[in-house]
Amino acid sequence: MRFFSDNAAPVHPKVMEAVAAANRVDTAYDGDEWSQRLDGAFSDLFGTEVRAFWVPSGTAANCLALAALCPPYRGILCHRDAHIEVDEAGAPGFFTGGAKLMLLDGPGAKISVDAATAGFDLVRKDVHQVQPAALSITNATEYGLVYRAGEVEALGRFAKERGLALHLDGARIANAVASTGERLADLTWRVGVDAMSFGFVKNGGMNAEALILFSTELADEIAVRRKRAGHLLSKGRFLAAQILALLENDLWLENARAANAAAQTLANAAPQRLVQPVEANEVFVRVSEAEAASLRSQGFDFYDWGPGEIRFVTSWDSQGEALGRLGEALAAL
Amino acid sequence: MRFFSDNAAPVHPKVMEAVAAANRVDTAYDGDEWSQRLDGAFSDLFGTEVRAFWVPSGTAANCLALAALCPPYRGILCHRDAHIEVDEAGAPGFFTGGAKLMLLDGPGAKISVDAATAGFDLVRKDVHQVQPAALSITNATEYGLVYRAGEVEALGRFAKERGLALHLDGARIANAVASTGERLADLTWRVGVDAMSFGFVKNGGMNAEALILFSTELADEIAVRRKRAGHLLSKGRFLAAQILALLENDLWLENARAANAAAQTLANAAPQRLVQPVEANEVFVRVSEAEAASLRSQGFDFYDWGPGEIRFVTSWDSQGEALGRLGEALAAL
Amino acid sequence: MRFFSDNAAPVHPKVMEAVAAANRVDTAYDGDEWSQRLDGAFSDLFGTEVRAFWVPSGTAANCLALAALCPPYRGILCHRDAHIEVDEAGAPGFFTGGAKLMLLDGPGAKISVDAATAGFDLVRKDVHQVQPAALSITNATEYGLVYRAGEVEALGRFAKERGLALHLDGARIANAVASTGERLADLTWRVGVDAMSFGFVKNGGMNAEALILFSTELADEIAVRRKRAGHLLSKGRFLAAQILALLENDLWLENARAANAAAQTLANAAPQRLVQPVEANEVFVRVSEAEAASLRSQGFDFYDWGPGEIRFVTSWDSQGEALGRLGEALAAL
Amino acid sequence: MRFFSDNAAPVHPKVMEAVAAANRVDTAYDGDEWSQRLDGAFSDLFGTEVRAFWVPSGTAANCLALAALCPPYRGILCHRDAHIEVDEAGAPGFFTGGAKLMLLDGPGAKISVDAATAGFDLVRKDVHQVQPAALSITNATEYGLVYRAGEVEALGRFAKERGLALHLDGARIANAVASTGERLADLTWRVGVDAMSFGFVKNGGMNAEALILFSTELADEIAVRRKRAGHLLSKGRFLAAQILALLENDLWLENARAANAAAQTLANAAPQRLVQPVEANEVFVRVSEAEAASLRSQGFDFYDWGPGEIRFVTSWDSQGEALGRLGEALAAL
Repeated sequence: MRFFSDNAAPVHPKVMEAVAAANRVDTAYDGDEWSQRLDGAFSDLFGTEVRAFWVPSGTAANCLALAALCPPYRGILCHRDAHIEVDEAGAPGFFTGGAKLMLLDGPGAKISVDAATAGFDLVRKDVHQVQPAALSITNATEYGLVYRAGEVEALGRFAKERGLALHLDGARIANAVASTGERLADLTWRVGVDAMSFGFVKNGGMNAEALILFSTELADEIAVRRKRAGHLLSKGRFLAAQILALLENDLWLENARAANAAAQTLANAAPQRLVQPVEANEVFVRVSEAEAASLRSQGFDFYDWGPGEIRFVTSWDSQGEALGRLGEALAAL
Repeated sequence: MRFFSDNAAPVHPKVMEAVAAANRVDTAYDGDEWSQRLDGAFSDLFGTEVRAFWVPSGTAANCLALAALCPPYRGILCHRDAHIEVDEAGAPGFFTGGAKLMLLDGPGAKISVDAATAGFDLVRKDVHQVQPAALSITNATEYGLVYRAGEVEALGRFAKERGLALHLDGARIANAVASTGERLADLTWRVGVDAMSFGFVKNGGMNAEALILFSTELADEIAVRRKRAGHLLSKGRFLAAQILALLENDLWLENARAANAAAQTLANAAPQRLVQPVEANEVFVRVSEAEAASLRSQGFDFYDWGPGEIRFVTSWDSQGEALGRLGEALAAL
Repeated sequence: MRFFSDNAAPVHPKVMEAVAAANRVDTAYDGDEWSQRLDGAFSDLFGTEVRAFWVPSGTAANCLALAALCPPYRGILCHRDAHIEVDEAGAPGFFTGGAKLMLLDGPGAKISVDAATAGFDLVRKDVHQVQPAALSITNATEYGLVYRAGEVEALGRFAKERGLALHLDGARIANAVASTGERLADLTWRVGVDAMSFGFVKNGGMNAEALILFSTELADEIAVRRKRAGHLLSKGRFLAAQILALLENDLWLENARAANAAAQTLANAAPQRLVQPVEANEVFVRVSEAEAASLRSQGFDFYDWGPGEIRFVTSWDSQGEALGRLGEALAAL
Repeated sequence: MRFFSDNAAPVHPKVMEAVAAANRVDTAYDGDEWSQRLDGAFSDLFGTEVRAFWVPSGTAANCLALAALCPPYRGILCHRDAHIEVDEAGAPGFFTGGAKLMLLDGPGAKISVDAATAGFDLVRKDVHQVQPAALSITNATEYGLVYRAGEVEALGRFAKERGLALHLDGARIANAVASTGERLADLTWRVGVDAMSFGFVKNGGMNAEALILFSTELADEIAVRRKRAGHLLSKGRFLAAQILALLENDLWLENARAANAAAQTLANAAPQRLVQPVEANEVFVRVSEAEAASLRSQGFDFYDWGPGEIRFVTSWDSQGEALGRLGEALAAL
């Protein structure tokens, strides 16, 4: 019974169907009919003109965007626990050519305007210190918290006033939308986001993520950077088809709602043991070593987050028996 | 009737089946059971211990290997028409951190020992000139010629004597094996190849290529570089499954034989118009502008290679009616 | 008797005096009074507002400029024999983060508009091929030829029409001005040059070159890149003082005239043996192996350029006895 | 009366003499007789075989070394206040091609084995997190503290056990030697240092620092990297001559002793106000805003370090009247 990561979940049947349906000859790279529909599909979804690029990983989506938003000799303000800092093997340094991640603090991997201001003001404005060029936030965060539209808006204002680009790591943007009930537009371009990754793999996809540009003038650069980084796959239609399947009838949102609901089930089972509020599809629980061992012996798979903390991640298919049994096991601790 | 590129061909049904069969929960990244079988499968195939990594593109496979074989301050000898020089948007410069491609000449994109020696000797052995660290060859070449084992062996000896690593772009290695009838081992590690890409996408795959290391001590570095470049996909099992399906019962070789045979059909239809011998699955034909237009008006899709030259590429599914009609059309020119 | 390179010549006495005079406490880096005068001094010299940066090498001056003019994912058109291609150990790749040098042909390392156009048109306008972003020329060229104002103007027009930045390697711009009698402005900003290196070390300086920006909006970026590359020296006044000494009373021009005149003396001694016209301070002479050996045995030091060709370079102090004796020796061949 | 930085001090007269004496024709780059003597001179100084390279800045010396010690995809453990982190505009990221600085804490910018261990252990040993490849320490530190031989030895042992290279930023190594009375060998190669910068500019030099390799097998790589970064100056003899002058009769040590003694004079004038012990040539003093203003109005120049703290830096020429007056002013606070 796997609650280790949404990364490991199966692919949604509708995505599998779409992949199968894309199996006919068509133009290579992104000239095919599926790929050509992406700009329109996302522009409809966001309610503004965007440019959308499929890539096979979130690392690629985030770091290509960051490379376009931050020159090699400047820096990116982000949370100390951001995925780009902690879990991408230095990918931002590789894609940007050596730009610096400038780390901010804050509970639950969330950045407040105060924290961002403090980080910004720490930098002496001279040629000896790396000057920030961008701010990167993650919604939902690596700890399963969400930013509301008002919070992103405040950060967007902060960024704009200081001449910073605003990047959004949206590996779990679907969970954030499902959680807040706010509109995508109000969490992104209306409040100043320039570019974002839109995660699908954790949410029912197979190997297609989207890089969305609200600053559409960056599209030509991104197209070249994608190719140059080996992320312009030759049968791109199989990626585009996955994304289109998840956009159709808001399957992406339905999946995220299911994952969030499953997380709530777990949270409700052991409310007094939660490390922090459960707002998306991650549940951090305080346990003793013996309790962790006991859960494992019952067949539950999860991540040892740190001393006395374990993490469960739910996904679009986390329902039914396994979920119920885990809830019971947590309640019984 | 599409003869534009093997890049655009459909995915082989057995690959589609394997992808569908991989759709269950398993460990993320490359910890799953499919990915874990790759080292063994390729070691069996090559008859020596190798390390194998799936990646979603040939550019990634080639350039990750080159980055491990050549430091940023040195160079890579390759043919002027090599894909890494001509068609990857500068990817080798990105992955290596600025290493230099040092261009060699030779008919049909093939490198002779003489040409390699000339290129090597052109470099003054001092600190002002970029010194080569690697030699990269492509088999089958970008023009559809193949290297025989003896030819690779001679280049391997040349490389070893000069302290150069030897890289093989094997986007169409299957076609080379099918064409020469030689054993994979005799085209690769036995004759000095350190690392290679093994192409599957052009040969019935969807979005999985393999990077094969014969210099297995590079494996840890490659694993990190793959992650850092955004090429460690989280549901890697879908890539590994494609590759395993193509290895099973030598489907890769069967597909390549079919593609090569289709190319021979075309070559035989217009032997006097061939720009160069047809040894793999590419056919370059001399035509007038009017002839090219006529072919196009008959519904054939192909690539305008240069003034008076067009290119047809066949693939694993290039048979039946379309092929026959193109053969007739070429014969009728 | 050394005619190997102007690189090896002594420092002009007035430069030595200026260095000695700068030896008092002052602000570090480029806050000192000498450094602060550079912008003004060069703006006067060029007759327009420029930004000027000292750096300790021509490689730094050229490559910092190129990094600001060309993003990592594009290319720089330059001559096959350009110093940045041949003699800087891949520095452009390092400074730009992997941009590609795109090589042009032409006699005497000079680029014609036709050659530049051919090189530009060779590139397919798609995402697979590296697109040029800049054109780099060298005046005087590596073979001692000069561009006249009209020639640079034509190249400037070519560049502008195609959206390319124009970079000038001015390691020997002084010799070009001395040779053509044209005004600096007419060889640079008036005809479209965006940034240039202005060489002083080969012309009587010790270790100070200037990077001149006509596109002054790049100044902040260059300032950071200079620091980041380790080229913002802490006692910058010693570099600025050298440059100011060479600008004073046009000593830079006087020195270049002396070097050019010395080259003419040699050229006149053996006019029928010149490989190409002598327009600046380099003299390429056709000799047999025996003749080269004989010259060497007479104590003359020079560079073996290639089979049957030797190179003499004159400098600001190439006069008097040694020059006369070399002239006689050449005439006696 | 300038106590702002040792960076801004005058050049020692013997260095000026050496520069003047080097003004004759000789081979370019580092082929001249002065440059050729460096390896021997430093090997004598350290009592072991080393390879020594002049470079024009400490940033270059440190970052070239780091690039050779740490591949782009790994990290460098260093103090949060290290110059390479705080004051080099991201130079390590540029020179290494994106390696990550991994920050350690500790009073006075000193790293303890405990702190290094904690930083090392924080990293999960998998492909997702950047793995450290090197440890960098600064002696004397940015806060004017020194490491004794035993302390470096312990860090050297730590590094060796974990497979880390050990880098020493020796911008003020002279002050550390003068302060501890320990032998250079015992602070460097005997205790595991692989490469170091040896600072001269802050200690009486003009624009020459040395990069010293104890791991001499890196010499060829460093030579190329130096060229490629624009730090192989063409008249290198003027840098080598400065260094040789400072090595002669241990002038480097004499200068450092003078600077340290001057710092002690200041420390003794206001012992109760010191932020931390004065062990080298930097004096951090607690003052109110009014006191700082008063000192400034008396003509003293210094650095505002932070709220309520100012920094004085002494240098080889900080003696005589100005020093005495500052001591009195501090005592009078």
